Amino acid sequence: MKQIFSSRNLVMPEVNIGQALIPKNSRVIWNHNGTAPGIWIEKDDKIFIAMPGVPYEMKAMFDNEIIPDLKKKFAEKNNSVLLQKTLLTTGIGESSLSERLGDLNDLLGDSKLAFLPSSWGVRLRINAEAKNEKDAEEKISRIEGMIRAKAEDYIYGINEEKLEETVVKILKERNRTLSVAESCTGGRISSTIVSVAGSSKFYMGGICAYSNLEKIKILNIKKDTIEKFGAVSEKTATEMAKGVRKLMQTDYAISTTGIAGPTGGSEEKPVGLVWIGFASEEKSFALSFLFGNLREINIQRSSYRALEILRRELLNIKIKF
Amino acid sequence: MKQIFSSRNLVMPEVNIGQALIPKNSRVIWNHNGTAPGIWIEKDDKIFIAMPGVPYEMKAMFDNEIIPDLKKKFAEKNNSVLLQKTLLTTGIGESSLSERLGDLNDLLGDSKLAFLPSSWGVRLRINAEAKNEKDAEEKISRIEGMIRAKAEDYIYGINEEKLEETVVKILKERNRTLSVAESCTGGRISSTIVSVAGSSKFYMGGICAYSNLEKIKILNIKKDTIEKFGAVSEKTATEMAKGVRKLMQTDYAISTTGIAGPTGGSEEKPVGLVWIGFASEEKSFALSFLFGNLREINIQRSSYRALEILRRELLNIKIKF
Repeated sequence: MKQIFSSRNLVMPEVNIGQALIPKNSRVIWNHNGTAPGIWIEKDDKIFIAMPGVPYEMKAMFDNEIIPDLKKKFAEKNNSVLLQKTLLTTGIGESSLSERLGDLNDLLGDSKLAFLPSSWGVRLRINAEAKNEKDAEEKISRIEGMIRAKAEDYIYGINEEKLEETVVKILKERNRTLSVAESCTGGRISSTIVSVAGSSKFYMGGICAYSNLEKIKILNIKKDTIEKFGAVSEKTATEMAKGVRKLMQTDYAISTTGIAGPTGGSEEKPVGLVWIGFASEEKSFALSFLFGNLREINIQRSSYRALEILRRELLNIKIKF
Repeated sequence: MKQIFSSRNLVMPEVNIGQALIPKNSRVIWNHNGTAPGIWIEKDDKIFIAMPGVPYEMKAMFDNEIIPDLKKKFAEKNNSVLLQKTLLTTGIGESSLSERLGDLNDLLGDSKLAFLPSSWGVRLRINAEAKNEKDAEEKISRIEGMIRAKAEDYIYGINEEKLEETVVKILKERNRTLSVAESCTGGRISSTIVSVAGSSKFYMGGICAYSNLEKIKILNIKKDTIEKFGAVSEKTATEMAKGVRKLMQTDYAISTTGIAGPTGGSEEKPVGLVWIGFASEEKSFALSFLFGNLREINIQRSSYRALEILRRELLNIKIKF
C-alpha cells in the first residue's frame, strides 16, 4: 500500500483517498509540487474543485491538471470551439497602438479583440468562435496577420511568453552572449534573465553598481565622466554598458542608471528619469525615458525597456520609442 | 470647469461625473496612479465598488481609498471590533513551528491563530474580537507575547513587512553597509534589497557572477578553489562573500552558489543544492541547503535564506537552520 503524506505529515493510506474519504463521482487531483492533493467532484452537471492553498502548488495543479480536463469536458458538450490567442507588445502605449491598428470592426466580424494594458506593455487578446477548431484557427490567423502587418515590430511574443524568454531565445539561436550593468534597476534585469531556464549559457553575469565608487572602480568609468555629466546621464549609461561588456567579454551589454525614487530627484533630473545604455562590438548608445513617481514601477519599466532595446538591436528593428 | 481624462483620452467634464453620469448615493474614488477613476455606489444597505483594471492602479485605490472607508463604515454599524495581527517567520517549517508553539487552545480562547505557509516562511495570523479596540488589542498582545516567548528568533517582522525591509532597517540603525555576490540567484537578492526605498545608502552593490571566469576574475577567487572543490561548494561560497566584501569595501557580504535547475544536477550535487556564504570583518562561513526541483522556488528560497542568515548574524541570533 503506497503512503501519501499530507502537508502536516499525517499519514493517509492511498486506499482511503480512493474509496472511503472522498465522495462518489470524485477523483483525486495530484499535486506534483507538494504533498496535499486536490479533489474534483461532479454533481448535478456541476463541477466542484478544491485545491491546497500554497500558491505555486495550486497554480501548477490548475494549469496542468484542471484546465486540460475542463477543456476536454466542455468541448464534448458544446458544438462550438472557442479559441484564444494573445499577441504581446511592448514599447508602445494603448492609444498609439489603437491608432496604429485603426478601425478593426470589419476585420473582426464576430471575433473579439481586447486591449489589455499593464505597466510593461499592451497585450492584444483575440477570441474567435467557430463550429470546429480549424475554422476558429483560421479566423484568429486572419486577424493576427492583419495586426502583424500594422504592428509587427512591437510584438515580442504570444500568449504566456515573456520578454526575457524571447531575448534568451534570440541569443541562443545566434550563440551570442550578454552582460548587464545595473544601477537604478539594482539587479532586476539580471534576475529576470536568470529566471529563464538555460540562460546561463548566454548570460555571463551582471554588475549592480549602486554607488559611484563601484561604477568607477569595477566598470572602469572615468571619474571625469561622472563629475562632469553626473551618474544619471547619457555618457555614464553608455560607458557602463561598454565597461561591463569589456569586463565580462560578451557580445552585447545593457545598462541602466536613473532615479527610481521616491526621493533623489531634482528639477533637472526628476524621479523617474532613466538612461538605458547598449553596447555591442559595432556600436554603443543610451536612450532616456521618464517613467513616473513609483519606485517599483520605475524599476519594472526600466528593466523591460532595457530588454526591449536589446531585442530591437538583436533583430535590427528600427522603430523609435 | 476642471477636466478629467480617462485612460483613452476621452474628456469628461467634472460636472458630469459629479451629477449626471454617476448614480445617486455614489461617489468618485480617485485614482492617484492613473487617469481612470473608480466608483462607490450604495443601495439597499449594500456597497458596490468598481475600479479600473490596471493592477497597480487598482491595488493602490483599494488599499488607500477603499479599505479605510470600509473599516469606518463597519465599525459604526457593529458593536464589536475585529483586530488582526500577523507575525512573520522564516527559516522554520510549519510543523516544526507548530511543535515549538505546542497546544495553544487554552491560550487562544475565542481568538484564532492561522498558520499560513508559503515558499519563504510561515505567517502566523492572530484574529481577536472584543467589544472595543483596547480589549481586542490586549487579547492579541497576550497571544503575541506567548508566541514570541517560544519562537522570537524566527520572527523577522509583522503584518505586511518584508524580510528585505527588516534587513535594510537593521543596517540603517547600525549604519553598516552590505554587498552581494550571486551565482544561482542571479541578481534576485540584489533586486529584492533595492526594491526597498532608501536602501542605496546601505547597499553598495552586487556582482552576478554566473560563469566561473567572472568568479575568478572579478571576485578574485583562486582558480584552485573552483578546480578542487567546484563552483558549488562551501569554499567557493565563502570566498565569493569575502571577495565581494573586499571589492565593494562593505561591512557585510552575502553570496550564493548552487544548482537552480531544471538541469545541471549530479548525484553528488543535485538540483536544489545551494551554498550560501557570509562574510564580515570578524568571520566568514557558508551553509548548504537542499531546496528542491523548481528553478523559481530555488531562486526564491535561496534569496530569502541568504537574507535570513544576514538578519541572524546582524542580530547575533544563534539558532540553527
